[in-house]
Amino acid sequence: MKFWKLHGAGNDFIAVDGEQYFINDYSKFAKHVCHRHFGIGADGILVYKKPDDADAQMVYYNSDGSIGAMCGNGIRCFSKFIYDNKLVDKTEFTVKTLDGIKYIKIELKDNEIKSIKVDMGKVNFDPKAVPVITNKDIFINEKVDINGMSINISSILIGVPHTVVFVDKIDKEFILNYGPKIEKLDIFPQKTNVNFVQVIDEDNIKVFTWERGCGYTLACGTGICSSVAVCRYLGLVSQKVNVESEGGKLFIELTDDTVYMNGPAVKICEGLLEVN
Amino acid sequence: MKFWKLHGAGNDFIAVDGEQYFINDYSKFAKHVCHRHFGIGADGILVYKKPDDADAQMVYYNSDGSIGAMCGNGIRCFSKFIYDNKLVDKTEFTVKTLDGIKYIKIELKDNEIKSIKVDMGKVNFDPKAVPVITNKDIFINEKVDINGMSINISSILIGVPHTVVFVDKIDKEFILNYGPKIEKLDIFPQKTNVNFVQVIDEDNIKVFTWERGCGYTLACGTGICSSVAVCRYLGLVSQKVNVESEGGKLFIELTDDTVYMNGPAVKICEGLLEVN
Repeated sequence: MKFWKLHGAGNDFIAVDGEQYFINDYSKFAKHVCHRHFGIGADGILVYKKPDDADAQMVYYNSDGSIGAMCGNGIRCFSKFIYDNKLVDKTEFTVKTLDGIKYIKIELKDNEIKSIKVDMGKVNFDPKAVPVITNKDIFINEKVDINGMSINISSILIGVPHTVVFVDKIDKEFILNYGPKIEKLDIFPQKTNVNFVQVIDEDNIKVFTWERGCGYTLACGTGICSSVAVCRYLGLVSQKVNVESEGGKLFIELTDDTVYMNGPAVKICEGLLEVN
Repeated sequence: MKFWKLHGAGNDFIAVDGEQYFINDYSKFAKHVCHRHFGIGADGILVYKKPDDADAQMVYYNSDGSIGAMCGNGIRCFSKFIYDNKLVDKTEFTVKTLDGIKYIKIELKDNEIKSIKVDMGKVNFDPKAVPVITNKDIFINEKVDINGMSINISSILIGVPHTVVFVDKIDKEFILNYGPKIEKLDIFPQKTNVNFVQVIDEDNIKVFTWERGCGYTLACGTGICSSVAVCRYLGLVSQKVNVESEGGKLFIELTDDTVYMNGPAVKICEGLLEVN
């Protein structure tokens, strides 16, 4: 089976053409190929399908075999995979995901992809949508108690549930300690991704993410968009924000209607997987 | 650049033909391709060279860019790579390593490799060779103090320095805690690999290894051979021992002269690496 390995800001994926190859069990396949020692190794798989109602469909599964509605870094890598492999023949196209249709714009330089812009859609602040159990209309800057420590968190939905925690300074140990605890709080019936956000100034922030189903990752696209949206809601940033994560940099633009994510997608290798 | 990814009992490697492709800086190359997110991802690289004095030469570097004299699981994967790619044309051949010439025997079944047997050479009990700083003639079951806890350790050399710690039961947390502390004890000027060994009976043991330069790995070939050799020296096992590690099983045979390691090598994928 032919595959590509790509990364978007250090978030890495195995992409395959699901029209060319039949995959019986996506969950099992994801666990196998994403295993870092027995497989190729990746955070998730991106499978191309051809739907009737969009230019392409992205089927996304995490390395633990769980299905993902949407993945920000993943959809940029997916877009590069289908554009470079001529599965789409234009620079602006639509990708169907479990979070709906996404609009992609490929920016070229000397016929090579320079950057990929994704319309991530509207941020959903409705606690029922996230979901987060609360009697409030919006779940922003709410106190939760973790091991006797009081922490303010904010939860929204961009395809997947995201929670934002502001910190004075990014501290990896703190993330590894509190990430999994916040992920599994009782108020999150479907768990949550957790973003630790350090605001530098109104145009620059740092975001480090603990991902539901993955653990700590080098960068999370939807997490970065969510973090900028929460920062903007609280009046902490402008409408155009540079975001630094451990794996790389993204550029986020906000309008009243939508969040645009701009960032890279890098091909690492292509190959043939041994299928037993 | 063409590559194969293989694993031997969960210890994974990127193999390339160093005669076909020129690699300027092996250390930099290893760090790049072995990176789990920005590269293909592996514990180390195996580069084929054609020497004058053996059928093949294995150049081995760890994922952190450090050179390795020898790697037990690696040499089985290397042997599969060169046999399947017809870089050698016989089932018994010699491989030159920084630890000297190794003798390989490929066992076939229906023309496919079933198992690979490696003559790992003689175990060196000389503390100066390991090296371990001591005034003893042999460093077996010696007390060391770690954070106020007294632990008995035994150190020998099979290509690389190996230290054995006997435990009643394999405990991953204990390994992750004490592995790096023992690795860096002052008595080991070149550091040491650390093997945690649980003896089941005289024909069966479990070995979990903390590798110098890699951290915890799913299996370590030289570590498993060293562990059996120390067990045999202490009269704890027979001359034919099944060894279980987290990543898989090996079969070790001891004679007065040498240690034979038998085990699998599995191809995961082959591909083309993007070289920038």
